[in-house]
Amino acid sequence: MVELLGLRIGGLSVGGVQTCLTVPRWRLAFDVGRCPEASVGCSTILFTHSHMDHMGGVASHCATRALRHMPPPVYVVPREDERAFADLFDVWRRLDRSDLPHTLVPLGIGDEHVLPNGMVVRPFRSPHRILCQGYAVSSRKKKLRDEYVGLEVAEVRRLAVDEGRDVTRVVETPELAFSGDARIEVLEHEVVRTARRLILECTFLDERVSVEQARDKGHVHLDEVLERAHLLENEAILLSHVSPRYRRGEVRRILDARLPVGLRERVQPMLAGLPV
Amino acid sequence: MVELLGLRIGGLSVGGVQTCLTVPRWRLAFDVGRCPEASVGCSTILFTHSHMDHMGGVASHCATRALRHMPPPVYVVPREDERAFADLFDVWRRLDRSDLPHTLVPLGIGDEHVLPNGMVVRPFRSPHRILCQGYAVSSRKKKLRDEYVGLEVAEVRRLAVDEGRDVTRVVETPELAFSGDARIEVLEHEVVRTARRLILECTFLDERVSVEQARDKGHVHLDEVLERAHLLENEAILLSHVSPRYRRGEVRRILDARLPVGLRERVQPMLAGLPV
Repeated sequence: MVELLGLRIGGLSVGGVQTCLTVPRWRLAFDVGRCPEASVGCSTILFTHSHMDHMGGVASHCATRALRHMPPPVYVVPREDERAFADLFDVWRRLDRSDLPHTLVPLGIGDEHVLPNGMVVRPFRSPHRILCQGYAVSSRKKKLRDEYVGLEVAEVRRLAVDEGRDVTRVVETPELAFSGDARIEVLEHEVVRTARRLILECTFLDERVSVEQARDKGHVHLDEVLERAHLLENEAILLSHVSPRYRRGEVRRILDARLPVGLRERVQPMLAGLPV
Repeated sequence: MVELLGLRIGGLSVGGVQTCLTVPRWRLAFDVGRCPEASVGCSTILFTHSHMDHMGGVASHCATRALRHMPPPVYVVPREDERAFADLFDVWRRLDRSDLPHTLVPLGIGDEHVLPNGMVVRPFRSPHRILCQGYAVSSRKKKLRDEYVGLEVAEVRRLAVDEGRDVTRVVETPELAFSGDARIEVLEHEVVRTARRLILECTFLDERVSVEQARDKGHVHLDEVLERAHLLENEAILLSHVSPRYRRGEVRRILDARLPVGLRERVQPMLAGLPV
């Protein structure tokens, strides 16, 4: 469990093996690679793409929640994966002889999905080997419109109630962006660079795999992050999806050595699942 | 990892959650509920039935082995599950955009499957809520036929080579029986009672769940094992698939209190995966 600006992130993420990052406070997870126990309490899963290490545990997740009499989960998937995802559950219903209740939400670029806590989820395209999307999760708060700021409370209430004026506007704050599996160009999305918290895939950390090889596999190399450090405005950054070729201590040592001042204070790695 | 007569058994088995018991020496596993890391090194998986907690991890197992350039695994499934199992992989090939190479071996009652190490696997019917089969894994050794025992080695060789007599017979020894999920009637199979080692599902251990409730769910209750203790000739017995309502210490205490002399020396529980 790591903490990003007071928001705890659980689960694990190991490149090629399994990714399932949970946000217990929001009962939310990104991907379910192999259904770690931490995922079972999450009622909404945002799937970035349909590679096995990101979606392989979804049927187990659904069955485990049903067994424990928990509410049916909501599975948000890229719109293009809707049919194959539904087919997967049809086959599993035959195998498991159960209903596997859940709500499937195909979400395309430009769509939004509102979480039970009122936060809004919007996907963005992640350039990967196959179709993939990241997600920005934003809080929504009503704020007084600028023209009413400074007025007496009683006066604002009068304008709103008696005159029926709309004195508030909704302010959205991107609380968390999750890159999904992506090439570095995912940073071209403004929300990825500016969300308060960013979970960025960073599969390769040093020269054992070159930037070209990383790009070829559809992943981010730490070299590319360092080149673009000046673009990252996020207050806290979690590097995830690290290749299991790196042991935990190695990851820490590499980041200590390579992250420049200004970035290192904001960056931490997701180590859960990596070899000790 | 537990040891049954010198044979190490790894993995984990928790009723309703996940079962994957491995025999590293034979590169063999029974079921892959959620693809624990221990399963990846196993090249043959014997599936007992298609409930999620026993088969949910199979696609992840296959993909992980492919990613690591390991030989394609062999999946042995009940003959009746062949079609749905193949359909599952067809859907996953669409989702994962990969070949997911493996060999599917549908094995019916009466069939046998020979492992790469020469041991022979035979399924037996396990009475469960859905179609289920257990497996007996036997070693095969050539032994001198009774009528030649006691003769000089040179004489036996002469009979075999010069006269072409078949002086040996193949002796099979059931080294391990795995019950699968089953009602207690699984003990009616002689091989289950007499295999050197038995892995027996025993989901419920005390009065919190009655024998009738256990039977209704298609599972074994410890009360039923105790009533039939005199039938069990196995040298070592592993009780698996224990319900997660029992904590590890509780399982030990209940077995210490309830197993009679003559049985307790041979029985141990599979605790991996149960709450601490």
